[in-house]
Amino acid sequence: MTSFAVIGHIARTDGTFSLNDLPGTGGRMDVLCRCVNSSLFLSHDLRSDTDCYLVLCGEPSPPKTVRFLGSDVRSLSPDERSAGALIKKALSIPVGSEFRDATSGISVRKGGLARLMSEHAFAVLDEKGPDVRQAETLPEAFLLSDHLNFTTEEESLLAACPRYSVGPVCLHANHAITLVHNELDRRRCKWN
Amino acid sequence: MTSFAVIGHIARTDGTFSLNDLPGTGGRMDVLCRCVNSSLFLSHDLRSDTDCYLVLCGEPSPPKTVRFLGSDVRSLSPDERSAGALIKKALSIPVGSEFRDATSGISVRKGGLARLMSEHAFAVLDEKGPDVRQAETLPEAFLLSDHLNFTTEEESLLAACPRYSVGPVCLHANHAITLVHNELDRRRCKWN
Repeated sequence: MTSFAVIGHIARTDGTFSLNDLPGTGGRMDVLCRCVNSSLFLSHDLRSDTDCYLVLCGEPSPPKTVRFLGSDVRSLSPDERSAGALIKKALSIPVGSEFRDATSGISVRKGGLARLMSEHAFAVLDEKGPDVRQAETLPEAFLLSDHLNFTTEEESLLAACPRYSVGPVCLHANHAITLVHNELDRRRCKWN
Repeated sequence: MTSFAVIGHIARTDGTFSLNDLPGTGGRMDVLCRCVNSSLFLSHDLRSDTDCYLVLCGEPSPPKTVRFLGSDVRSLSPDERSAGALIKKALSIPVGSEFRDATSGISVRKGGLARLMSEHAFAVLDEKGPDVRQAETLPEAFLLSDHLNFTTEEESLLAACPRYSVGPVCLHANHAITLVHNELDRRRCKWN
């Protein structure tokens, strides 16, 4: 099982954003939609062994966490608007502190990074970390930030996490997810 | 200079598609928009050494080729809708057989794969090819298909092209572009 978690620092936490303006009204929800795509899609299939967590920290009721379970998701298409519509639906239902299903495989709860870190042993994708290709073993859970850097508070939560870099240039989060998946695929299939 | 070209087998060749339904009315234009993103975007920058060609083969006037020059593009954002809007604008102007600028860095002409192949020495990204990581040298131009396989006619045009695989599982075209960029970045920066 592989898990990716992405922090959306200004991502809207209710369902009032417009699918016609995911970057603006959604608080760069487009970034998170692309991360869902990179986490879950194979060419004509979904990665049933992968989950994707979106930690939403924007207004009006942060933080919330939306979870996509690759094994259970049914109605997701690869385009950003499709993921956006499912996130919008998840954010439109009343939630408490435990995950509540919005649609098949997609659920939402109150709470953010601290709670998620108590449940997963995350490695951080960080351009200053050692090369992911050189790592002897790789973890099962990876944490990334959206278009903004981790905050000071987040960095202190993450201080003890291992860090890996996917390459020599600084990339979008969804591109980094694709590169981690490729490294894991290659190791699983003995391509290295 | 690196070039990526993607064939959109049913991608609309006029500007009448809806930005609210890129997959449906655009003929899977969403696939091509994601390929533009993967070809051109770094974290907070554009890849000025990369071009992206979209070969559109859908109705009403196929084929047309839309070219994004990474060095000259100015108004592109990473979300699918942004690329879709620029493609729509390019497809709304009258064109002949030479590239005509629609907006900065984005141009369009009549003509498809055969013409493009006379201008670039493409390698084909193909899951049956040898591993891109093992190649002694890599070409400068890569050709991919959208969600559909190459047609018989396309395959005969491509018969003599070298082929490379990016990994052991079959991926979306935009994910494959990200993996090729990473391999090229690593070689350029001596990370291998």
